[in-house]
Amino acid sequence: MWFCAGIVSQLTRNCGVSPAERQTVTELTHFDDSGASRMVDVGDKPVTARMARAEAVVEMRPETLATIRDRGLAKGDVFEVARIAGIMATRRTSDLIPLCHPLPLEGARVDFEILDSQTVRIEATVNVRARTGVEMEAMTAVSVAALTVYDMCKSIDRAMSISGVRLLEKSGGKSGHFVREPVSS
Amino acid sequence: MWFCAGIVSQLTRNCGVSPAERQTVTELTHFDDSGASRMVDVGDKPVTARMARAEAVVEMRPETLATIRDRGLAKGDVFEVARIAGIMATRRTSDLIPLCHPLPLEGARVDFEILDSQTVRIEATVNVRARTGVEMEAMTAVSVAALTVYDMCKSIDRAMSISGVRLLEKSGGKSGHFVREPVSS
Amino acid sequence: MWFCAGIVSQLTRNCGVSPAERQTVTELTHFDDSGASRMVDVGDKPVTARMARAEAVVEMRPETLATIRDRGLAKGDVFEVARIAGIMATRRTSDLIPLCHPLPLEGARVDFEILDSQTVRIEATVNVRARTGVEMEAMTAVSVAALTVYDMCKSIDRAMSISGVRLLEKSGGKSGHFVREPVSS
Amino acid sequence: MWFCAGIVSQLTRNCGVSPAERQTVTELTHFDDSGASRMVDVGDKPVTARMARAEAVVEMRPETLATIRDRGLAKGDVFEVARIAGIMATRRTSDLIPLCHPLPLEGARVDFEILDSQTVRIEATVNVRARTGVEMEAMTAVSVAALTVYDMCKSIDRAMSISGVRLLEKSGGKSGHFVREPVSS
Amino acid sequence: MWFCAGIVSQLTRNCGVSPAERQTVTELTHFDDSGASRMVDVGDKPVTARMARAEAVVEMRPETLATIRDRGLAKGDVFEVARIAGIMATRRTSDLIPLCHPLPLEGARVDFEILDSQTVRIEATVNVRARTGVEMEAMTAVSVAALTVYDMCKSIDRAMSISGVRLLEKSGGKSGHFVREPVSS
Amino acid sequence: MWFCAGIVSQLTRNCGVSPAERQTVTELTHFDDSGASRMVDVGDKPVTARMARAEAVVEMRPETLATIRDRGLAKGDVFEVARIAGIMATRRTSDLIPLCHPLPLEGARVDFEILDSQTVRIEATVNVRARTGVEMEAMTAVSVAALTVYDMCKSIDRAMSISGVRLLEKSGGKSGHFVREPVSS
Repeated sequence: MWFCAGIVSQLTRNCGVSPAERQTVTELTHFDDSGASRMVDVGDKPVTARMARAEAVVEMRPETLATIRDRGLAKGDVFEVARIAGIMATRRTSDLIPLCHPLPLEGARVDFEILDSQTVRIEATVNVRARTGVEMEAMTAVSVAALTVYDMCKSIDRAMSISGVRLLEKSGGKSGHFVREPVSS
Repeated sequence: MWFCAGIVSQLTRNCGVSPAERQTVTELTHFDDSGASRMVDVGDKPVTARMARAEAVVEMRPETLATIRDRGLAKGDVFEVARIAGIMATRRTSDLIPLCHPLPLEGARVDFEILDSQTVRIEATVNVRARTGVEMEAMTAVSVAALTVYDMCKSIDRAMSISGVRLLEKSGGKSGHFVREPVSS
Repeated sequence: MWFCAGIVSQLTRNCGVSPAERQTVTELTHFDDSGASRMVDVGDKPVTARMARAEAVVEMRPETLATIRDRGLAKGDVFEVARIAGIMATRRTSDLIPLCHPLPLEGARVDFEILDSQTVRIEATVNVRARTGVEMEAMTAVSVAALTVYDMCKSIDRAMSISGVRLLEKSGGKSGHFVREPVSS
Repeated sequence: MWFCAGIVSQLTRNCGVSPAERQTVTELTHFDDSGASRMVDVGDKPVTARMARAEAVVEMRPETLATIRDRGLAKGDVFEVARIAGIMATRRTSDLIPLCHPLPLEGARVDFEILDSQTVRIEATVNVRARTGVEMEAMTAVSVAALTVYDMCKSIDRAMSISGVRLLEKSGGKSGHFVREPVSS
Repeated sequence: MWFCAGIVSQLTRNCGVSPAERQTVTELTHFDDSGASRMVDVGDKPVTARMARAEAVVEMRPETLATIRDRGLAKGDVFEVARIAGIMATRRTSDLIPLCHPLPLEGARVDFEILDSQTVRIEATVNVRARTGVEMEAMTAVSVAALTVYDMCKSIDRAMSISGVRLLEKSGGKSGHFVREPVSS
Repeated sequence: MWFCAGIVSQLTRNCGVSPAERQTVTELTHFDDSGASRMVDVGDKPVTARMARAEAVVEMRPETLATIRDRGLAKGDVFEVARIAGIMATRRTSDLIPLCHPLPLEGARVDFEILDSQTVRIEATVNVRARTGVEMEAMTAVSVAALTVYDMCKSIDRAMSISGVRLLEKSGGKSGHFVREPVSS
């Protein structure tokens, strides 16, 4: 059952939104009181040093990962191409995500770790001094790095999948320090 | 004397890659025989009608998904913003993925389905008549749509995660018809 | 009175759409039957030679236009900078317009005409052989050329305005030949 | 009569620019004393909170506007797609306008108002703390939002036109507060 | 002595262009008869398989080149990063060069050769089947690859220089086969 | 266990990099200790007023340069198109150069000088107040301006070449004031 259809039938049945639900709605800061999406004005927030880390895992056949490791010994390492793609993607984030602020990023890195015979973990760290955070830049970096690994290996393993794209750490904003453990082997 | 060659001979002497492994390495078509990455020349492949479908799921707290559903009743629907982001991303794919071919895309769509109280499934379909396929465009569309859902809801649920980014179907190339079942609730 | 507000109150009053109205809705080809926006699949349309012309006018104080004319005598002509901006914008159209197809444009030109002492007319012509037309490329070219004239002269005439952005001619598609007269002095 | 031709004949007749005219020329800050265009160095201007608002109107057949309103009741609202396009365009402004400064925008919103049975008004507001203003970002936002409305409705109303693209308000720079009334029904 | 100044004084002295010179002017196909720049309409040219090769050299201190070579043994090879940058730049060419046609590139590669203790040669090859050639894509690829080498080594050798950016070969268009020898050590 | 580390230890065993060479390697700030490329974190550097100047020369047949000069008398000056391309390229630098920081540029100019009957010199100056410098923006500006001259004249002189792309001056960072003489006729 598709959501579009669901919503339409729900509209027919019930055009009222309860007061409690309305309150929840206003928590989504990307919408104003009338419900219009916007790039939130962050002009009143202070400039602080902000950092975000995100991770993703790419799952593949053991033969595929063995091939990537072998390539790491030669030129044209898969992870090196994916690393460059991930770092460059941090600077394209506000071209991709509609309500994201453009930020003068100060640092970005992308690292790769082999968790087990069929799993690669990717972690990105992004830094800035700005009025808003860089979670989306870190999340975009790991996503694009993972997509690049997929692109480079899809000729031998079309069934690869990307999972666990999530925020690991965020610091520097008024919402406090968020941190959680990375996935491990 | 080419630098690539220099490295390869040194690798042969020192880093020990077995002949069998070498064969696997050459299956990664994004690298040439010397190991250099490249945008593969597809000029000799025929122009055929090609299609690719990909999916991703976004997992979140039930309260978050309830909020998104409520928003669907008003203006500024989260899924509509994410849909636009995913469609636009199909056209930025070769700006993001280093060895991807630029293609004159002929159609793209992104759909959303609520699987259960905390899971949203996103599916993208992309069409082209070209010498190479559109898997990366479909994979990029679901990734960017999922990142946009994350961006719009992160103020209330920073722990959301994106999983199951994978190819569902691919047709039109010489590698044949690839198809698998979508994730279901 | 804002539309957002209007729509919401209308929703409360009237969630039914009449059959006649439904028929009209489906004429907007950028939406599918369920109402979801999409990049329409044009794969079944034939490749034909297509052309579109669009125009815009920029209105300004006579002193401003006199200054632009004087500059035309020296280096750094305002119209030359705007012409380059308009031509380059034809190639960015699908980066800007969410449901627009990317096209391998074959030709583009932007011209300027002084209609009277305070009015400049801009005309753009774009050519392609493709499955869909180039109206948006021509419309975007005149808009960006006009915005560039505004940018370069805003320090002396902040009240300038851009009007009459419209399609003048379109040929090559199944919808037939559309043509109308340009604005004249 | 085209301006290019006019300028050339004028060059033949009259290569002198009067002293009074010369003074006017130098007011165009995008050119230096030798007449070369440039991105003006704003390094000596103070960082201040700046805001700009701009508007545009889209004129169409009443049937077209009725169709847009009907769509507002379902998914895939024309104005919502145009809103996203306008907001994203604020961040592409310096990619489009040749001598425009890139700015770390802090807020952007785009709103739609139905003025009468055939006229839609679009208004954009952009905020930044920077050494130069955001007029071009606001002007570009309303232009791209209007072009998107055109794109989505052109299959039913090719003759739509965009008018009244102009600055409504600007504050925060040394040139003082500029403000004027929006167009009304 | 700057050209701007020179041109202006020449304008004052001599506004006539001789008939012979006029003929030469029209050879620049990027301008029409009235002198306006344009993206030339290539719609009447046949689609043919086209190829272009270009080269550039980067000159540096022997210590710098030794460092690059050492890095080639580890991760993060300077040439690999530059190779990716060069390949990606082929797809950005029409974003950078004002009158360049956007083309659906079919193949691109960038190679590095150490000519002597202080000189690196870069060569790019680009392929397409289109109505116009890919010289600019190959020239842009070597330029951006060379700029990336500069960027990565500038902290130890600010005086590096890039030379000999030139076309080596071009085939597939009506202007015939152009080929010349690469620079050698 | 990180993959980078794995490679490094293997290198230590097999590929023999001497301790002295290792020291040199770490001078390339775009790599971290493990050898991974990154966008260096400049968050701890102070914001200072920074400037960079770069130059390039374009060599061509005397007939080609004569044609460019003649065009300078009419509309559509080759140098004016190249100037706009160079200025716009300063703002695309971090889209092109993988490890380059995005910067809110405050000023940019590109100038042209005819050195002799077959040589044009291009100079770019870029300004910013930021934590890192603008050498790459100035180097990219002269490269893209030179490529544009090549593009506009290649129909009459395919053998043109671009040389001497190099930094002329850099000020404002902790590495001190770097300056050298431009090439002269």
